[in-house]
Order: sequence, then structure tokens, then C-alpha cells
Amino acid sequence: MQVVSTIKEVKDLVKQWKSEGQTIGFVPTMGYLHEGHGSLITSARQDNSKVVVSIFVNPKQFGPTEDFDSYPHDLEKDRRICENLGADLIFHPAPEEMYPKDFYTHVHMSVLTEELCGSSRPGHFNGVCTVVNKLFHIVQPDHAYFGQKDAQQLAVIKQMVKDLSMDVKVVGCPIVREEDGLAKSSRNTYLSAEERKAAKIVSETIRMGENIVKAGETDAKKLVAAMEATIETEPLAQIEYVKAVDGLTMKPITKIKSQTLVAIAVFIGKTRLIDNFIVE
Amino acid sequence: MQVVSTIKEVKDLVKQWKSEGQTIGFVPTMGYLHEGHGSLITSARQDNSKVVVSIFVNPKQFGPTEDFDSYPHDLEKDRRICENLGADLIFHPAPEEMYPKDFYTHVHMSVLTEELCGSSRPGHFNGVCTVVNKLFHIVQPDHAYFGQKDAQQLAVIKQMVKDLSMDVKVVGCPIVREEDGLAKSSRNTYLSAEERKAAKIVSETIRMGENIVKAGETDAKKLVAAMEATIETEPLAQIEYVKAVDGLTMKPITKIKSQTLVAIAVFIGKTRLIDNFIVE
Repeated sequence: MQVVSTIKEVKDLVKQWKSEGQTIGFVPTMGYLHEGHGSLITSARQDNSKVVVSIFVNPKQFGPTEDFDSYPHDLEKDRRICENLGADLIFHPAPEEMYPKDFYTHVHMSVLTEELCGSSRPGHFNGVCTVVNKLFHIVQPDHAYFGQKDAQQLAVIKQMVKDLSMDVKVVGCPIVREEDGLAKSSRNTYLSAEERKAAKIVSETIRMGENIVKAGETDAKKLVAAMEATIETEPLAQIEYVKAVDGLTMKPITKIKSQTLVAIAVFIGKTRLIDNFIVE
Repeated sequence: MQVVSTIKEVKDLVKQWKSEGQTIGFVPTMGYLHEGHGSLITSARQDNSKVVVSIFVNPKQFGPTEDFDSYPHDLEKDRRICENLGADLIFHPAPEEMYPKDFYTHVHMSVLTEELCGSSRPGHFNGVCTVVNKLFHIVQPDHAYFGQKDAQQLAVIKQMVKDLSMDVKVVGCPIVREEDGLAKSSRNTYLSAEERKAAKIVSETIRMGENIVKAGETDAKKLVAAMEATIETEPLAQIEYVKAVDGLTMKPITKIKSQTLVAIAVFIGKTRLIDNFIVE
């Protein structure tokens, strides 16, 4: 496995691979890899002859008051994980490599970004679209893998690829969870021991919501109220949103049906956690 | 030469060509082709084994009060021109093929779009970037050809390709002119006989400006004033702008030097004409 930091190195390798008829699976990450990322790399490994993982904490997708500066990192551990899972290449660029001084182009996404994380993190998804658009041009993957945990991000990327006729198949992979149900996230590391216990409420609320829907509830308002009430039983939890939206457009819906996305964002202390489920 | 209207048809052909090791030259146009476009197609023909011309009047790059609905078209003539110049494929999509109902992604360009046509045509270059980004994904050209007449557009496309690490070489081609100097443009057809005569002032002003610079003038203000005074001698001409800007960033400059872009936009009656020169 190689680790490179320049766009040119990746492009040269990709060019060679393409000329050999290799297929490329791509897992874009911000590093500090956990089993969630691992499942993406494993999927990429199964579907493609070459696997590229990018590790880049993208400044453009962080708001001014967010955790860009403190975002956790451990390149050496990431390297071992990628190697063990059979990746062929890590692309680990410096911010100046991706965004040189005179960088003026941004990819904007409307409609899908108005609700959920889009409304609480203005500019976030434009940062995501811009970096993924660029990474796709660099890596030219046949398949790109994203976690269903970031459900809105997955929908936004799929929409960008469709709108701009990009030649890549976007693959969504199931949420990977801790033993107590908490969705794996690099940000879980921010939680104190006490907060970590309290964080269980997030996945419990998701499971509870799923059960309510399975039991036949179709009124989005009632579902949201029940899930909010559950979260409120945890003193350390602060709701940012609990919402039911259309799984493609992210627009609010009133009647729950197949492909409805039910998503929540909850602060446990200062740590913002997200989780979701899609109605079958 | 084939004429196709769907993205899939182009992608299938491109895929086949790529697998055969063919190189692709691409000339994106809004149709109503003239010798300016012809020179782009000829350049593409010389440099590549396959040549694709797109003919698409892109609604996203027209403002609400602009000439989208009246933009001239003559597909049959365009077809003959492309065939005669040795193009292999015309891509002529309907607006709904390029922008289906749920289209939410746009490519935005800052800085380079603040001056010149960018300030008088808000949103224009975002429309240009969005369509060219998408067309590049569809056609996957090795080289793409744009006229130097639309100097700001050429700079914007080059910037987008660089910023987003797109795998295409953008080639700028010299302005092609009528016998009296008027830069070839599909919009020249809007001019009445009287306006057509008056339009000569546009290229005359450019030639005059070039001579002033050749004679040693380095003060942008003085150059602009002299060029404005020339345009004002023509009663049918109305200045939109006369500007000297940095050739890469399009930012205003005060001292003329190598690579300065001197650009003008002039209304002759209701027809907006542009022209420019780059200081050697």
C-alpha cells in the first residue's frame, strides 16, 4: 500500500491503473478511521480491483464555530487499518494541495440541504460537494462508498453525481454500531465517560422510532413527538432536530411511507451526534 | 458524423472510443455556428482522433431579461458545418435532458466573475460553469476548445478545471473577425444594416487600444479613457464597460503589463457586443 500527498501522484497511478483495465473503489474520509470506515473499505475491496482511501479533514465543510481545529487524527493508526483491510492507496493531501491560494470554485447544492444538518450547518454541504467533486476528478473511481450514518450527505452526493452526470456509482453502506447501539463516529472520542453512557439515548431513540413505524404509525408529527420525548428523558441530551423527510429530496413529509428518512441530531454535552433510519 | 440527443448515447460512444485509445477534442457551443466556432472545430480536428461538438442553448447562463428565447438557431446548417469540418459527433440535447425537473447542483465561481460580464450578467458564469462541468463529465474530452472572444469565460473555465482538478486541457483560440474587423458572433445577426455598420466601432476601439499600448502607454485609466472616447464617437453605441484587468484573476489593474486583458462590452442598439485584446 502506498501513501501519497499530491494530486499528481494519485492521477499518475490512476492513469496507469485505468490503462491496465483495473476498476477503482474509493472511500473518502476525514481520517481517525473506525469500523464504520472499515466496512466501507471492505465493500470497496470486494467490488473493485484497486481501493483508494482519502484522508483529508476538509476545512470547507466546517463552520467557523465548529471543531475543525480539534478534529481527531491518527495517521499511523489509519495507515494500519487501511493496510489490514487491503487498500492499495491512501491519499493524504495537505489543505494547500487541495485548496491553493487562488481557489475560487465551489459546488452548491440546493433543496436537499435546506433541512436537517443543512439548516444547522450552513455551507457544510457546499464544502462536502466541492471536495467530493474534486476528489472524484482526482481518483476517477468506478464506485465510491459513503456511510448511511451521514444520510443527508449520501443523498447530496448521489444528487450531485446525477445532476452533473459524473461517471461514478455511489454506494451507501449500513450504519456500524457500538455494542450498546451508538453509531460509530470519529466524534464519539469527544465524549466523557458519563456522556458516553448518556449517548446511548441516541440509538435507543432510533430503535424506538423504528418500532413505532413497524407498529403502523404513519403520522410524522406523532412519531417525532414520541422520539423527542424519549431523548428528553436523558438530562445530558439536547435535541437539535428530530425530523421525518423524503429520502431523496430531504423535504419534510407529514405521512410516513417507504423510503422516508427519519433523522436526529442530538448534543450530548458539547458533542453533536447524528443517527437515522430509513423506512423500508 | 452522428447527431445524438441523450447523455447516454454520448457516454456509450465515449466509453467505446476511450477503450480504443482514441483522444477526444470537444467544442461546446450554443449553435448557430460561424467561422469562430469553425476555427475551434478545426483546432480540435488537428489535435484529437475524435471531435465532439455540443449544441445547447444553456438556459442557466441567460438572465431573466436576456435573449434566451430569441437566441438564433439553425441545426441543419450547424450540422453541415460540423460535417464539413470533420466532426465525429454532435450532441444536441433538449433542456430537460441536461436539467431534469429535480436538478439542484450548481457550480459557482467567485473573484473572476466580479468584473466585466460577471457584474453586468449576474449568475451568467455560474450557469456557464455548471453546464461545462456537466458537459465535461459527459464527453470526457482530452482537450476542450473555447474562443478568446469570450475572454472572461475562457479564464473562468480554466480556473474551474484547475480548482476541481478536472482532467481536461482547456485550449483558447484566437478571435475570428469579419472583413471589417467585427468579431464573429451569433449575436451579430441581431444587427440591422445601419447597426452593422456602426458595430465596426467595437473592433476599431480594440485595434486603437492595442496601438496605444504598443506605443508605450502603461496607465490603465488613460487607456480606458481613450477607448471610451473612441466608442462615444459612434452615436448608436452605448458603453457597458471598458476595462483593463489581470488576465488570470480578472481583477482591475492600474498599470498595464504583459497578460493584462483589455475588454469592452458595447450595446449597438439592443445588441450587446464584446471584444478584447490581451497585452503581449
